[in-house]
Amino acid sequence: MASVDVVFSPAEPLPRADGWLVVDLLRASTTIVTFFERGGRRLLPVSSVAEARDLRRRLAGRWLLMGERNALPPEGFDLGNSPLELASVDLESFDGAVMTTTNGTAALLAAASRGGVVTVAAARNGLAAVARVSHCERVAILCAGLEGRPALDDTACAGGLVARLLGRGAFALSDGARMALALYGSAPLVDLVGLSRHGGRLKALGLEADLEYCCQEDCSNGTVRLVTWEGRPALEAF
Amino acid sequence: MASVDVVFSPAEPLPRADGWLVVDLLRASTTIVTFFERGGRRLLPVSSVAEARDLRRRLAGRWLLMGERNALPPEGFDLGNSPLELASVDLESFDGAVMTTTNGTAALLAAASRGGVVTVAAARNGLAAVARVSHCERVAILCAGLEGRPALDDTACAGGLVARLLGRGAFALSDGARMALALYGSAPLVDLVGLSRHGGRLKALGLEADLEYCCQEDCSNGTVRLVTWEGRPALEAF
Repeated sequence: MASVDVVFSPAEPLPRADGWLVVDLLRASTTIVTFFERGGRRLLPVSSVAEARDLRRRLAGRWLLMGERNALPPEGFDLGNSPLELASVDLESFDGAVMTTTNGTAALLAAASRGGVVTVAAARNGLAAVARVSHCERVAILCAGLEGRPALDDTACAGGLVARLLGRGAFALSDGARMALALYGSAPLVDLVGLSRHGGRLKALGLEADLEYCCQEDCSNGTVRLVTWEGRPALEAF
Repeated sequence: MASVDVVFSPAEPLPRADGWLVVDLLRASTTIVTFFERGGRRLLPVSSVAEARDLRRRLAGRWLLMGERNALPPEGFDLGNSPLELASVDLESFDGAVMTTTNGTAALLAAASRGGVVTVAAARNGLAAVARVSHCERVAILCAGLEGRPALDDTACAGGLVARLLGRGAFALSDGARMALALYGSAPLVDLVGLSRHGGRLKALGLEADLEYCCQEDCSNGTVRLVTWEGRPALEAF
């Protein structure tokens, strides 16, 4: 039987898998899904702010610089990590964006190092995202977590993805998958996320609207995968 | 307000805490609690099988050698890691036991390295164990996990400890504490543990009776803490 595993943070030893769903609900995954939904062409995830600035300088064409440190855009960035903020930009007029976020980028790159198809999953594109990996033998959902530790928000979202995967077929559940599923079943997603440390931090910064947007489920058909583009990791719609 | 955190495995970065509850439900924590309940005097936890053998040779007095690798006693050991097996030995006639287990020992030694009082908690002594740390400002529950990853059995037990702690006073809950509590509330402990990977492994070895014993809640008043004895870590009743 096919199986599904949930990994709570990239600090855990990563399992083998042929299909990855990477979750950074607040907010990288949601922002990435929204970026492509709004006509963005290509996203280049990098680890550090310095690398992001340097890469944008070296790229031909028009590229945006987006991302966050401590939930806010670093100096000189065009955009932060807010999905709602993307509405203010005509994404189609750019070749793409270079993106760095504290937890989400690291999780994407960790999954990529293990092989298999790597996709971005959020609550907004939950059903669409699981449809992309439901044929896989070993599905792994990697949560970005917060500061190297498991995060309530990502784990709850992962539990929702497990539930949607089970709606498409039979999967053996790992301990992590069972734990995430139990969490997801315990309360509405927006309530769980509102109680999370990361959710509290966004509220304190006045970003409740982002939080609510991130918790809306199954309202996007967009799917995103990690590929190699000109020798570096890149995200594109598929 | 005082706080309680749950750490799913020693692979996570450990928080600061002044009171630790270390959980390896299947079976080290349960065996340790039972050992002292049955008159055992002192337990010396060590990391490796070789170290356990060597230490027993060097100790004055009568010492048992107990522990497991892959759930079974290593060659030449007097006892495995079975709490029920302890009934076959007159523990009072020994000075104590040298113990090594795959996950539990590592978790105990990891907690000890962070300071604060370190106690052993299982389902059987849940209420008694939380009473020992309920005055602390920062309680941390460290789950042993399985092979460096979170385990359903330990996390469910940890959730039960969070519930019991909340019965004694107000504690701010970390993301990990909320996740464990939601898991514990989702089904009876014995059912959750029966679904866990570790539980399945014990059943496959014919150790269902151990599993059921480990899942009995609040039937022991025994509490156990980590101390230094003759320059090395030791467990004793308190």
